[in-house]
Amino acid sequence: MVPPILYNWVILICRFCFPELQQRYLLLWLALDYLCDLLYLLDIVVHFHTGFLEEGSLIQDRAQISRRYLCSSSFLWDFLSVLPTDLLYLYVGLDRPAVRANRFLRSPRLFEAFDRIETRTAHPNSFRISKLMLYIFVTIHWNSCVYFALSDFIGFGTDEWVYPNSSLPGFDRLLRQYLYSFYFSTLILTTVGDTPMPQREEEFLFMAIDFLLAVMGFATIMGSMSSVISNMNHADKSFYPNYDLVKDYLHSQQISRQLQHRVVDWQQHLQMNKKMTNELQILQHLPERLRAEVAISVHLPTLRKVQIFQNCEQSLLEELVLKLKPQVYSPGEYVCRKGDIGREMYFIREGQLAVVADDGVTQYAVLGEGLYFGEISIISIKDLIWLTSLYRIYRLVRYMQYNQLQS
Amino acid sequence: MVPPILYNWVILICRFCFPELQQRYLLLWLALDYLCDLLYLLDIVVHFHTGFLEEGSLIQDRAQISRRYLCSSSFLWDFLSVLPTDLLYLYVGLDRPAVRANRFLRSPRLFEAFDRIETRTAHPNSFRISKLMLYIFVTIHWNSCVYFALSDFIGFGTDEWVYPNSSLPGFDRLLRQYLYSFYFSTLILTTVGDTPMPQREEEFLFMAIDFLLAVMGFATIMGSMSSVISNMNHADKSFYPNYDLVKDYLHSQQISRQLQHRVVDWQQHLQMNKKMTNELQILQHLPERLRAEVAISVHLPTLRKVQIFQNCEQSLLEELVLKLKPQVYSPGEYVCRKGDIGREMYFIREGQLAVVADDGVTQYAVLGEGLYFGEISIISIKDLIWLTSLYRIYRLVRYMQYNQLQS
Amino acid sequence: MVPPILYNWVILICRFCFPELQQRYLLLWLALDYLCDLLYLLDIVVHFHTGFLEEGSLIQDRAQISRRYLCSSSFLWDFLSVLPTDLLYLYVGLDRPAVRANRFLRSPRLFEAFDRIETRTAHPNSFRISKLMLYIFVTIHWNSCVYFALSDFIGFGTDEWVYPNSSLPGFDRLLRQYLYSFYFSTLILTTVGDTPMPQREEEFLFMAIDFLLAVMGFATIMGSMSSVISNMNHADKSFYPNYDLVKDYLHSQQISRQLQHRVVDWQQHLQMNKKMTNELQILQHLPERLRAEVAISVHLPTLRKVQIFQNCEQSLLEELVLKLKPQVYSPGEYVCRKGDIGREMYFIREGQLAVVADDGVTQYAVLGEGLYFGEISIISIKDLIWLTSLYRIYRLVRYMQYNQLQS
Amino acid sequence: MVPPILYNWVILICRFCFPELQQRYLLLWLALDYLCDLLYLLDIVVHFHTGFLEEGSLIQDRAQISRRYLCSSSFLWDFLSVLPTDLLYLYVGLDRPAVRANRFLRSPRLFEAFDRIETRTAHPNSFRISKLMLYIFVTIHWNSCVYFALSDFIGFGTDEWVYPNSSLPGFDRLLRQYLYSFYFSTLILTTVGDTPMPQREEEFLFMAIDFLLAVMGFATIMGSMSSVISNMNHADKSFYPNYDLVKDYLHSQQISRQLQHRVVDWQQHLQMNKKMTNELQILQHLPERLRAEVAISVHLPTLRKVQIFQNCEQSLLEELVLKLKPQVYSPGEYVCRKGDIGREMYFIREGQLAVVADDGVTQYAVLGEGLYFGEISIISIKDLIWLTSLYRIYRLVRYMQYNQLQS
Repeated sequence: MVPPILYNWVILICRFCFPELQQRYLLLWLALDYLCDLLYLLDIVVHFHTGFLEEGSLIQDRAQISRRYLCSSSFLWDFLSVLPTDLLYLYVGLDRPAVRANRFLRSPRLFEAFDRIETRTAHPNSFRISKLMLYIFVTIHWNSCVYFALSDFIGFGTDEWVYPNSSLPGFDRLLRQYLYSFYFSTLILTTVGDTPMPQREEEFLFMAIDFLLAVMGFATIMGSMSSVISNMNHADKSFYPNYDLVKDYLHSQQISRQLQHRVVDWQQHLQMNKKMTNELQILQHLPERLRAEVAISVHLPTLRKVQIFQNCEQSLLEELVLKLKPQVYSPGEYVCRKGDIGREMYFIREGQLAVVADDGVTQYAVLGEGLYFGEISIISIKDLIWLTSLYRIYRLVRYMQYNQLQS
Repeated sequence: MVPPILYNWVILICRFCFPELQQRYLLLWLALDYLCDLLYLLDIVVHFHTGFLEEGSLIQDRAQISRRYLCSSSFLWDFLSVLPTDLLYLYVGLDRPAVRANRFLRSPRLFEAFDRIETRTAHPNSFRISKLMLYIFVTIHWNSCVYFALSDFIGFGTDEWVYPNSSLPGFDRLLRQYLYSFYFSTLILTTVGDTPMPQREEEFLFMAIDFLLAVMGFATIMGSMSSVISNMNHADKSFYPNYDLVKDYLHSQQISRQLQHRVVDWQQHLQMNKKMTNELQILQHLPERLRAEVAISVHLPTLRKVQIFQNCEQSLLEELVLKLKPQVYSPGEYVCRKGDIGREMYFIREGQLAVVADDGVTQYAVLGEGLYFGEISIISIKDLIWLTSLYRIYRLVRYMQYNQLQS
Repeated sequence: MVPPILYNWVILICRFCFPELQQRYLLLWLALDYLCDLLYLLDIVVHFHTGFLEEGSLIQDRAQISRRYLCSSSFLWDFLSVLPTDLLYLYVGLDRPAVRANRFLRSPRLFEAFDRIETRTAHPNSFRISKLMLYIFVTIHWNSCVYFALSDFIGFGTDEWVYPNSSLPGFDRLLRQYLYSFYFSTLILTTVGDTPMPQREEEFLFMAIDFLLAVMGFATIMGSMSSVISNMNHADKSFYPNYDLVKDYLHSQQISRQLQHRVVDWQQHLQMNKKMTNELQILQHLPERLRAEVAISVHLPTLRKVQIFQNCEQSLLEELVLKLKPQVYSPGEYVCRKGDIGREMYFIREGQLAVVADDGVTQYAVLGEGLYFGEISIISIKDLIWLTSLYRIYRLVRYMQYNQLQS
Repeated sequence: MVPPILYNWVILICRFCFPELQQRYLLLWLALDYLCDLLYLLDIVVHFHTGFLEEGSLIQDRAQISRRYLCSSSFLWDFLSVLPTDLLYLYVGLDRPAVRANRFLRSPRLFEAFDRIETRTAHPNSFRISKLMLYIFVTIHWNSCVYFALSDFIGFGTDEWVYPNSSLPGFDRLLRQYLYSFYFSTLILTTVGDTPMPQREEEFLFMAIDFLLAVMGFATIMGSMSSVISNMNHADKSFYPNYDLVKDYLHSQQISRQLQHRVVDWQQHLQMNKKMTNELQILQHLPERLRAEVAISVHLPTLRKVQIFQNCEQSLLEELVLKLKPQVYSPGEYVCRKGDIGREMYFIREGQLAVVADDGVTQYAVLGEGLYFGEISIISIKDLIWLTSLYRIYRLVRYMQYNQLQS
């Protein structure tokens, strides 16, 4: 429904204020007008046939759908906006497109559609900025139409402020009329000024109201833009924690340059490779079932590679996935040490892990993707292995299994 | 008290700076002035009779009320603002409304009233924007009055900057005088400029101060607007958690499109139907008693429908309501499974719930609004039913009863 | 140190750019200059005598103080800024105040002083706004001085852009010179424009740089202002939780108007009477000792009124105060009920509390300020009283005593 | 890669729009062009030899590196941007630098470099502001080039809006051409206006689009600036908690002035001496291993000074450091009292600590840096000492050792 409503908002006022536009392309307008009316009507028909959700069930019964739609407030607007006010053309003639003004009443559907797009789109911030620019354009467009109509009412060229009359060369061209009005309107609404001094009370009022509108509009644009930018920053920070504070702290404590560089490396590694350390937190607002499906979709392929689970049935693995807790290790970090009491089992999702001797150098074994360790904690053997992850290990996701439901 | 105070702030300065306005409608002004004075006096009388809260008791004793009011600082302003300075009219003549300047002193009451309205109104953000616009209007209005008075002082038409003298056609009309001054003032305070070059020291000063005022004012408007917009966004996010991050995560993990669509559907379902998942968190700042009453008011009708509670007395139900924890399930989510240990009891507030066989398809029973299950956990039978909520179930509020006070 | 540094920043550049100003008040300037130099020197002397904190001890030994100060970087600036560059007057003559330019180097002390004031002042936000306005003023002031000097360099009146030469009436007056330059500078730095078209390369450059500066400056002002406003809103919300969400929730759940009004009443009651419900949270960043002193200072007078504590020694009471937890009740809320297990003791700080019968109306007793109950829980009697606070009770602070250290 | 890409972005458009610039310094341009091309090529060569991280291992094998780079999308841009389009010079002549337009395609590498610098720099906020200013400059620069080219297309001097033709003195100089265009462009993009009225449709369009661009750009600048400022405030607050609320609370509770001053002193002491009370919180986002290294680097020197640890081996001390919890005490605060059950051991990192008698004045001993107490709690002697830290003690870091792993 976006195109026909926007068509009416942009074109109708224009045709009303620039009579030449209406007359010159009369057939085109009539065609487009009735195409839009058709779409409006179609939308109503669709609403009469679209089931709705009630108590979780999709109601498909046409009588019920009709009753519900007829009682809703949106039906009133839908209905008013297709009233055939065009019949008034018979009385006032075809050059008065104002009789179709009721088409503007469909605008709630426009905002509804915008909300739906904003929810669905993969780039909500870009969409918000585009919407903002559309609103700015429509405001300036309407304002320029009103300026031209006001000029016409006062009389073209009667003073400096109004649109010049056709005695000036080029000023009787339609494109010039629109561009001049649009430019004039832009000058005012961007608080640039530089317009001729008004001469009459109406003009003073028009200008003063416009400037106030401009200031409020400007403040709204700024506020929305600030909000979009802080939104983007917030998203960045949610994915990758802000290390500015850490760097300030290291600097103030005069930590060695070499250690500072390693911290920056770690941060850059996370950002460049789009690794996340807090995926559980991001998903927390999803209902349990959806969260489970997301976790299954992300982690099941890895779990399938683990040997001991290859004969398990699907439903057990799904339950297992929900108990897993992803964890990111930095290179050189110890996952566990000789002597620790084993209460967890680890599966390696990405990267490599070395089992090293006490000297931290001799490697007994290197575990890769799909391998696991710590299962000994299940069968309660106390002989734990001292592990160290070496420099070559960049990411190890620790899957932690709670083998007791109570904990 | 808003109308009389605003009347004085808007009209008095205007009458002082535009002598013609004062003279032409003299009787109207006198009538309105004394009506306002009457309201001012009435307000004082009301304050002498309004009880106040002290240590939780409403004090109604007139002597105590009077003593408290007379000692408060607001009495001083109230009193000063009704001093009959009009008597000076006898000396200076009726065209000097400046003698009533003390009426401005009542403004603290205006801010008090605004604060009260902001707390009470159902649309605090709209009210904040309106207040902002009122402040902008009053500032421009005062500035235009000062400009006209300054022009008068320098002499109309002595240079280009001041208001033109009456030799120019139309410039001796009162409406033109005000509109021109207002327009001039708008030009400056919206940093548009385009005003004639000042010629005298006073004019330079007036312009420079005004421009600085404009910049600070502009910054304040922007800041307030940003704050209102971020306020609205915050409210949105408090009701419906922000799914932008979730979508980014799903996208970065290359989850299947079909699952991504289901997440978006869930989000849209919540927003369209104004379902909330975090009502407990929103109410947390209310004192316990009020929170209880809100919970009772929301949930008691549902509880009344539950068969086993139909003979319970009111007070028991009220206590029960406070123990209930609303929960929203998505369609297809399992509420509990065969083999789970039952520690909760569920009441269905909205939607439908199916008891299904192990295959997840065969339905043994469908429970609707007002029904309950899980009461078996009270009578300690271990034979739990495996439940699944099917696609038709959109919302199920789980009422959790803690049957032990300790937990 | 604020006045002399500001004096140098504001006046010195002015005297350098407006030679007439320097010549006309020469003696005044010399007097003020040397007064400032004296203050600069005094400041150095003071620094040589001010002890400093090292490892918690205040070092008063002059040798140590001197050594530390001489080695600090601030000494370098302090020293450079009092170098007697005035001696160059002997070569270049008294109308070249530029020789004193090294006085600007003292500015780090200015920012230090501003930081100290911002920490100390009771109105940090007002101070931040004033500081912002001072920065704006100094920037415009310097810019206007530069404009005048540039005009002088190009030659007054050689084109329209520069300052007009003295052949125009009034333009040779000093005040006019300054005001014109200041106004001109304001026009540019507030992005108003309306200045004559530049004619030379230097003028184009000056204007372009100024406009860019204006945009960045404007953005900084807006950002700072937004930050101040959001700061104030944050403070408000920290003291009094935001009830906008609660009202939206009540509205969306179609709660009865009467209950909605009671919620608003509660909010208004808190705000009007400056009651806080979260004082513990506000004080959390203070070190333990200071927090204790604040708590003692607020609550000890109440505790002193309690009969059973009247013979206790000071130190016991102080320890007791730290265990107390203030709590606010709304009128009609139950503090505890018949049958509850008593684990707390309550002291009434403000308001009244009624012990009522099962019917909720008959009052057995009314407890007022300084009274207490719940002490039975200490001596382990199980016979608890059913209490209700009636409408007349507006504030009851519950002092909770943990009688076991473990909990 | 920043210089060559910026060179192309800034210079190429300029040479295209100002033909005189291209012709006059032709040899210089050719030299710089091919130097940049060389750098572009070198960058590609480097990319063919730079190993990358895969599964934590640095892949150095050239065949693998080449395959990966050739398949990446960035290779496409890199390759397109070094296509020898200069060969077209042979057909169109050397004054058409437009043939090198494909050099702009390297810009993704520019943003990549900016991201890398922003992560690495010690002053991220300054860098963000510089980046913002660079973007503003490049936008105005391009706009001025487009204005000059459009003027050329319409014909210099054909109307007032375009660049004047060479008959006006000075307007045929290259510097004047650029400065005039840049100034003109600045006027529009800072919404100053004051430009001559457009006369042709193209000019109206150019101006209207520019003004809209200006408004959106302005909003973006403001938003980014607000974000930078709120970022800095946030950093400040993370290091030093905001005491505004505390001061408001003390004020509203009418606490004695003397206590209020002590709170302010404490705050100022923290800020002036850059003491932090929340270092653990700042480091929380680092992986465990890095956090440990930072802690070791900060605290090991202190621990080394403690007598009982002087013979311990390095690895034991490192583990010990991780268990330590830094704590800041204010002067006069009690660390522990006679009768407390000792479960912690304290090491003094900074400041002094006095063991005092019951009267709080007599000092039994003063402990300084590197000393410790509380070890008696390890050997379980119940005879604890009542300690008080006097005014001279400004900072004591309490190292708390949990002597049981379970807690």
